Amino acid sequence: MAQASTQPARGMRDFLPLDVRRREYVIGIIREVYERYGFEPLETPAVENIETLMGKYGEEGNQLIFKILKRGEHEKTGEADLALRYDLTVPLARVVAEYKDRLPKFFKRYQIQPVWRADRPAKGRYREFYQCDVDVLGSRSMIVEAEICAAAGEALTRLGFTNFTIRINHRQVLTGVLDAAGIPQDKQTDALVALDKLDKIGREGVAKEFAARGIASDAGYNLLSFFEAAGSLEHAAELSVIEGRAETEALNAALLGRLVEFVGDHEAGARGIDELRSIIRYAEAIGISQRIRIDPSLARGLSYYTGTIMEINVPDLAGSLGGGGRYDNLVGMFLGQDVPACGFSLGLERIIFVMTERGMFPESVASSTADVMVTIWSEDSIADSVALAQELRAEGLRVDLYTEADKLGKQFKYASSRGIAFVTVIGEEERKRDEVSLKDMRSGEQRTLPRESVAAMIKESL
Amino acid sequence: MAQASTQPARGMRDFLPLDVRRREYVIGIIREVYERYGFEPLETPAVENIETLMGKYGEEGNQLIFKILKRGEHEKTGEADLALRYDLTVPLARVVAEYKDRLPKFFKRYQIQPVWRADRPAKGRYREFYQCDVDVLGSRSMIVEAEICAAAGEALTRLGFTNFTIRINHRQVLTGVLDAAGIPQDKQTDALVALDKLDKIGREGVAKEFAARGIASDAGYNLLSFFEAAGSLEHAAELSVIEGRAETEALNAALLGRLVEFVGDHEAGARGIDELRSIIRYAEAIGISQRIRIDPSLARGLSYYTGTIMEINVPDLAGSLGGGGRYDNLVGMFLGQDVPACGFSLGLERIIFVMTERGMFPESVASSTADVMVTIWSEDSIADSVALAQELRAEGLRVDLYTEADKLGKQFKYASSRGIAFVTVIGEEERKRDEVSLKDMRSGEQRTLPRESVAAMIKESL
Repeated sequence: MAQASTQPARGMRDFLPLDVRRREYVIGIIREVYERYGFEPLETPAVENIETLMGKYGEEGNQLIFKILKRGEHEKTGEADLALRYDLTVPLARVVAEYKDRLPKFFKRYQIQPVWRADRPAKGRYREFYQCDVDVLGSRSMIVEAEICAAAGEALTRLGFTNFTIRINHRQVLTGVLDAAGIPQDKQTDALVALDKLDKIGREGVAKEFAARGIASDAGYNLLSFFEAAGSLEHAAELSVIEGRAETEALNAALLGRLVEFVGDHEAGARGIDELRSIIRYAEAIGISQRIRIDPSLARGLSYYTGTIMEINVPDLAGSLGGGGRYDNLVGMFLGQDVPACGFSLGLERIIFVMTERGMFPESVASSTADVMVTIWSEDSIADSVALAQELRAEGLRVDLYTEADKLGKQFKYASSRGIAFVTVIGEEERKRDEVSLKDMRSGEQRTLPRESVAAMIKESL
Repeated sequence: MAQASTQPARGMRDFLPLDVRRREYVIGIIREVYERYGFEPLETPAVENIETLMGKYGEEGNQLIFKILKRGEHEKTGEADLALRYDLTVPLARVVAEYKDRLPKFFKRYQIQPVWRADRPAKGRYREFYQCDVDVLGSRSMIVEAEICAAAGEALTRLGFTNFTIRINHRQVLTGVLDAAGIPQDKQTDALVALDKLDKIGREGVAKEFAARGIASDAGYNLLSFFEAAGSLEHAAELSVIEGRAETEALNAALLGRLVEFVGDHEAGARGIDELRSIIRYAEAIGISQRIRIDPSLARGLSYYTGTIMEINVPDLAGSLGGGGRYDNLVGMFLGQDVPACGFSLGLERIIFVMTERGMFPESVASSTADVMVTIWSEDSIADSVALAQELRAEGLRVDLYTEADKLGKQFKYASSRGIAFVTVIGEEERKRDEVSLKDMRSGEQRTLPRESVAAMIKESL
């Protein structure tokens, strides 16, 4: 038979034991922090009806959705009726609409599950990746934004990150700025798309792109000048350099001042500025204000955001470790009635990438599963070894049992290659006296013990 | 805008917080037991290349695979190049072939992930469901079978199941029995398919089906008579009634004797009987022999099994809680070189179904996330409440913060509806004196404390 390819599908990954342990470690900490902030777990299916997803992520998003063929006799139509989850936010909105009567008035949920996007794979960009989301449904208070920033930030801190910055902005403030600069409404999306490339193509490149998109040069000039004056033209990574709390608070206050000046009496914009001010105030009360930087140029792609936008960056990493925002209208698409909502998503893959690069995993995460390996002396003594393994497990130890009566040297070598700390032997002599020989693979020390005291001895030394 | 449907896709489920907590509880115990047996975690992508899966699960399996449309310009071809994971065994075989040099000689892995099958949904049958698999690769020893039975059995025991039976059989023994009965090789699969319906259609129904499938009546009669004599015609559920250890061991010994008699000098069959005998012997050493019953009629559907077949049943449940077997040739389909392998899969959904029906979840699994809810006295005191919530979290408590300055009665009612045990209030008086009022929602008792001792008081009472 022709051999099938053994690689995982393009852009997807197998996780061998050490990989899984690292992922579980990170997920465990994020989950614990999210729970401490009062969030409750939710899980949704990997597969959604295709109409649930289409049209929620913009034109580009539609292209990146993995679509599932109809089955049985309908397969040959080549049509899709299902699709793979593209993010955790749209399924949440569906869930809130479906179970509204069973959920609390303020639904604080976390969800840590994979999503799938048919993006071109690249270094650090996969087609299957985990998101770790927190969202609060049902409240318009900026307490939500502050708490979400605190939760995401604390998760990173607990993982060992010391130098991250949470940039915040506001869709309505952005609109206010664009209006004030004189960008007509039908060109605002274009203007933001162009602005988003500032990092890559520089001020002149953006000006050219403005022209190409039919944005009047004076309006484009106004806009670029404002962002320049607002001091937010730097690359995100530079923004992430930590300053003292007082400096950060002063910087944010100054930016709020400039925004008020520029946006003027633009109603929605002014309300947005007030909301940013509230977030800063609550962040001060929480004690995380030096983490938070207002960035008037921040404009995250997703079309469903209506208010605050947030993003977490660390220095030396293009792209973010996570982001989120307020989306007060998304649930309405399913429920027919708006429910205020705000959320944040930490990107597991990026976090693990940085932690691996920087050696941030504790040593315990790398250790082998088994505390002890039980060897097999001979075919005749298999039952003895099987029983010993079981006794040690009953004492709570993680026990690997060698499964063949190979030469003892080979069995020891195997235990050593696996990094297992203890190995037991029941030879002829030990068997007669109901004893066990126990070797400490780290020190090389070997001693013979009464069978019933082996577990205690291992537990003591681990 | 027309509202999209809010239901999950057909045959799939949303898991609200309590559902997730139950699932996590069960998965946590299974994982802990598997680790105690020395298994290490593996995870594979939800999506596989379509050729990896096609042809591994028989004709019916092929039909039930969810296929993913090609993307971009290829979408309109209506062709699929990817598919959703159908079980955890085929991906494991692929992984073993791909990473052979990096994996230990004996690769003991567990994997707890969802799989997808386009089966017709029914009560307890879903299109997305979790499997909890353990497999040992690289060993032909029956120690593997015994340990896998012990691990699966211990997981069920730890979850509170007291009355399960692990039925075992062997593909080669089955072949030996069929050969001895005079069923020609090209009719053996048909004979097993018919036999599998014995529960539903009875002996006469099976005899009719034999005839319809062109199986000679004397051969069919031989076969049915053997199974009748072997006392294994009862419904699986009846087989699950617990007997004493001695009775079970005697029954198994008697069955082995009958098999030896019937199969005679059929070489592969005799070797299979020896293997069953070894499993029983090791199970005795482990102390689980009263759980294990040889069942010569057991014939699990999957075509890749080559040796032992196993299945766990509880009384009063049609179908099994899990099953597995030995598949020494599957890795060879990917590697071009056989690697002995044996595994077992516990079905998470069935386990949760039975545990829910029987009220087997501990009370702690039902509890709300938050230990305490912090109320908001007024708009002016938001910062105080935000800060208090943060202080309590720093002490390790799980804290929900109400996000609006609603009337206090409303906030208390909300906490009560959520089942949160403690509620804090910082009113005007408390604020002046740096105190906090703490209400125990279970007793109704309320007291005013210095702010710094609130966390300790809550932790003491939880």
